[in-house]
Amino acid sequence: MAKVKNVLFIMADQLRADHLSCYGHPHLQTTHIDNLARRGVLFEQAFVNSGVCGPSRMSYYTGRYPSTHGATWNRVPLSINEKTLGEYLKARDIDLVLAGKTHVMPDNKGLDRLQIDGQSELGVLLRQGGFVQLDRYDGHHEPGAESGYPAYLKAHGYDSTDPWTDYVIAVEDDKGQAQSGWYMRNVNFPARVKEEHSETAYMTNCAMSYMQSAGDKPWVMHLSYVKPHWPYVAPAPYHAMYSPEQCLPVRRNEQEKVNAHPVVQAYRQQEESVSFASDECVARVRPAYQGLIKQLDDHLGRLFAYMESAGLMDNTLVIITADHGDLLGDHWLGEKELFYDVVQRVPLIIYDPSESADATRGQRESRLVESVDIVPTILAALDMSVPAHRVEGRQLQPLVHGESVTWRDCVFSELDYSYREARLTLDKSTSECRAWSVRTDRWRYVYWRNERPQLFDLQNDPDEFNDLGEDPQYDEIRQEMKQRLLDWFASLKRRTSVTEEEVAKQTHKYKQAGVFYGQW
Amino acid sequence: MAKVKNVLFIMADQLRADHLSCYGHPHLQTTHIDNLARRGVLFEQAFVNSGVCGPSRMSYYTGRYPSTHGATWNRVPLSINEKTLGEYLKARDIDLVLAGKTHVMPDNKGLDRLQIDGQSELGVLLRQGGFVQLDRYDGHHEPGAESGYPAYLKAHGYDSTDPWTDYVIAVEDDKGQAQSGWYMRNVNFPARVKEEHSETAYMTNCAMSYMQSAGDKPWVMHLSYVKPHWPYVAPAPYHAMYSPEQCLPVRRNEQEKVNAHPVVQAYRQQEESVSFASDECVARVRPAYQGLIKQLDDHLGRLFAYMESAGLMDNTLVIITADHGDLLGDHWLGEKELFYDVVQRVPLIIYDPSESADATRGQRESRLVESVDIVPTILAALDMSVPAHRVEGRQLQPLVHGESVTWRDCVFSELDYSYREARLTLDKSTSECRAWSVRTDRWRYVYWRNERPQLFDLQNDPDEFNDLGEDPQYDEIRQEMKQRLLDWFASLKRRTSVTEEEVAKQTHKYKQAGVFYGQW
Repeated sequence: MAKVKNVLFIMADQLRADHLSCYGHPHLQTTHIDNLARRGVLFEQAFVNSGVCGPSRMSYYTGRYPSTHGATWNRVPLSINEKTLGEYLKARDIDLVLAGKTHVMPDNKGLDRLQIDGQSELGVLLRQGGFVQLDRYDGHHEPGAESGYPAYLKAHGYDSTDPWTDYVIAVEDDKGQAQSGWYMRNVNFPARVKEEHSETAYMTNCAMSYMQSAGDKPWVMHLSYVKPHWPYVAPAPYHAMYSPEQCLPVRRNEQEKVNAHPVVQAYRQQEESVSFASDECVARVRPAYQGLIKQLDDHLGRLFAYMESAGLMDNTLVIITADHGDLLGDHWLGEKELFYDVVQRVPLIIYDPSESADATRGQRESRLVESVDIVPTILAALDMSVPAHRVEGRQLQPLVHGESVTWRDCVFSELDYSYREARLTLDKSTSECRAWSVRTDRWRYVYWRNERPQLFDLQNDPDEFNDLGEDPQYDEIRQEMKQRLLDWFASLKRRTSVTEEEVAKQTHKYKQAGVFYGQW
Repeated sequence: MAKVKNVLFIMADQLRADHLSCYGHPHLQTTHIDNLARRGVLFEQAFVNSGVCGPSRMSYYTGRYPSTHGATWNRVPLSINEKTLGEYLKARDIDLVLAGKTHVMPDNKGLDRLQIDGQSELGVLLRQGGFVQLDRYDGHHEPGAESGYPAYLKAHGYDSTDPWTDYVIAVEDDKGQAQSGWYMRNVNFPARVKEEHSETAYMTNCAMSYMQSAGDKPWVMHLSYVKPHWPYVAPAPYHAMYSPEQCLPVRRNEQEKVNAHPVVQAYRQQEESVSFASDECVARVRPAYQGLIKQLDDHLGRLFAYMESAGLMDNTLVIITADHGDLLGDHWLGEKELFYDVVQRVPLIIYDPSESADATRGQRESRLVESVDIVPTILAALDMSVPAHRVEGRQLQPLVHGESVTWRDCVFSELDYSYREARLTLDKSTSECRAWSVRTDRWRYVYWRNERPQLFDLQNDPDEFNDLGEDPQYDEIRQEMKQRLLDWFASLKRRTSVTEEEVAKQTHKYKQAGVFYGQW
């Protein structure tokens, strides 16, 4: 019987679920991702635990919520006290190899405090969040020494000290002039890098060459693309593949701006939102964004074809997901972070080669799943026990294997906006800029520290235009959602210095320890 | 102007606030503690953050709640990721010296994981929770090598391999026979150790000799007595100083047992509660318990007299408190842990020698304070900044110096009973046995995971006999208390790998980092 030997954990950066044809996009055909969905399970309600790269990824890599792992925003180091997937796999002598982005910020102060040499084997692994880096490249800046990409570009004739800046995210305009792709007005022009030398092509090659060299040793790989994340520069021909009419219509209306939530309002004043408020920006960025996704799909096709030919599709569990979506002007906002489905909902496809998954191939699963479920799912796929005193997610095998199981009926997401301009706009302290979202099939409730709540009825208002956070009619709903949030807070796993099994073994041990208290 | 140079942080183990005359005990005269109260501030509403030694003390030593520091019960190691008062003081080159009990459980697994030698200077300090141990003795077992007490006993003629077991907690009955003080029926007899060689006398001597040897170097000392904690064996003459009539009446009635809360009911089935359910046990234990407190007060008198003569009362901040109370049969329960004031409310007296405290000398402060306030108070007394990204308590100087300040209106306490028989009685998993209490001036609300809540009206039911946890009349109160708990959970400090100042400095730094996202 086919068994899982390897795991390929693919992540795209800032990829909206609704931008894949298997999730309903009418014009953007993601043929190869769709094919994998036909062979596996497509999760229609997969949500991230934070709408920001760093905290979302740390939840993917630790199996814990941001409130627990503590890396609540992009610049917050991942505490060395946090165990990651890489550390769990090490116990099985399996490397978690990395090709691409993790956004792990090293906890150098934590290392200094405990006198751990950051250059030692342990120190390096802790600073890398447990990943063994084939080629780490976090994107949207000139790659550093931890990536071979700059050398690769130079070797292919991109002659510059900053080849990424001058070629990869630079475009050539209609006058033949080089322009910076940092400016969204330029993204209708093609990148100055050839498609075959682009970030997406390079990282796919990196993953394939590792698979070729791996031999018989089982492997777990995180293939983590930096696209379609901004800068929205696509190489030819992808830059011009879609017209604005072939893009999803922008989701916003005037009524949203009336009595808007203070934090949403403050985000709308940030530059990315001001830019995307113009239809011209939306019409220019969305085609490029779609082009980058189409390009990604083509390279995944190339990768899957190789894996098929190498027999890897018979023994490799494949996961495709994203760290969050992209507002692209929806709700008069740019970027991400806030609690709308276009940000919080991501694609998730799991292909399990084992026979036990045959029952569900091609099925669409509508139960609610979260980023924290990925670590336990990968551990379970490799027959490893899931450390219940740390991991807060649930393994998805019951859903992938079609076993009956009682399941959660809501998911949670978090935001820490203390690093953002919004904090200054609202004149808040760095400790109070936190929000938590509870989402069920029907409702999304957002609790904001020191601000009024938000509530959306996703059944009658799927576009999330109408904030019911202060509507007295919905008091009961808000109370019920608040109760869910309270129960969730109470369930977070902080007692991490002992395992559940150790606690069970020690229950009622006083007498055995020779202490006889309470005896008459 | 007098300034704080040293800090003496005195803790008694399992000492109820209502057992001091300055807190209203009609027969037990704690003369010397009362004298200190007349020179300082007495806190009438000081509460612990857990009614159990370990988690309560870890909150005293870290300034963080059990949900944050994670050491939720006596057997749970204090994660090496937690910073303690001792580590903060080290930055000022001040040792936090220890005479007595801390209940710190070393996080050996945490040390192994990070390859830190437990015998190295760092390893030892981490394993001791940041304390420099003059003489560590955690009580209620034969002291180990970390205490000089066994050798001291042998040197004074207590000839045994287990002098503590055979003399300190052994009694001599009316037939001249030795009996074990583990059995509460024997605690009306005197200990076989002389009063001058008892635990309380020994640890007081230990503290005094350190003060004598300290010279001019500033010091911070944790003098942490193991009494009046069980075994309730008092040396003569204290064993026979009080009659049952001179003890506080037991607080319990039959009505309490009707439809009792399931967890309270399960605790009542544990041996300590079964024993204390008999009036005979109450009448025998309480006099001994009072004797131990009287003895403690006498030794504090001796200590304060020395400090006065050595001029130390002019430059030493003195704190007296306890880690929790003792049920002593109240509510048909023995021991502690549960959410009743006799467990949760402790004595707290702060004597500040500085002139800025002259305005409040002898005053009784009724605002709500918690164990987590002690770390920031000690740091502030030494003009050290309080790390706001970790410490969850507040410095008490504004109250001690009579400055106007807005203050909290509720306090929080927690319980993890997963190690207790109650878990087995209720057939619960090791991860669900948690409870949180919110206490205001008027109400105590207890949220239990997977059990109904408790609610007490402390104004109309100060003895906490009448659980309103299911009374529909109090829905609104419960909602309001639940909101407080939710707000508290949302405020806990988990983003510990960066300081608030660092976050503030990095706010809105994208452009400065050369990343120009969101620009048209």
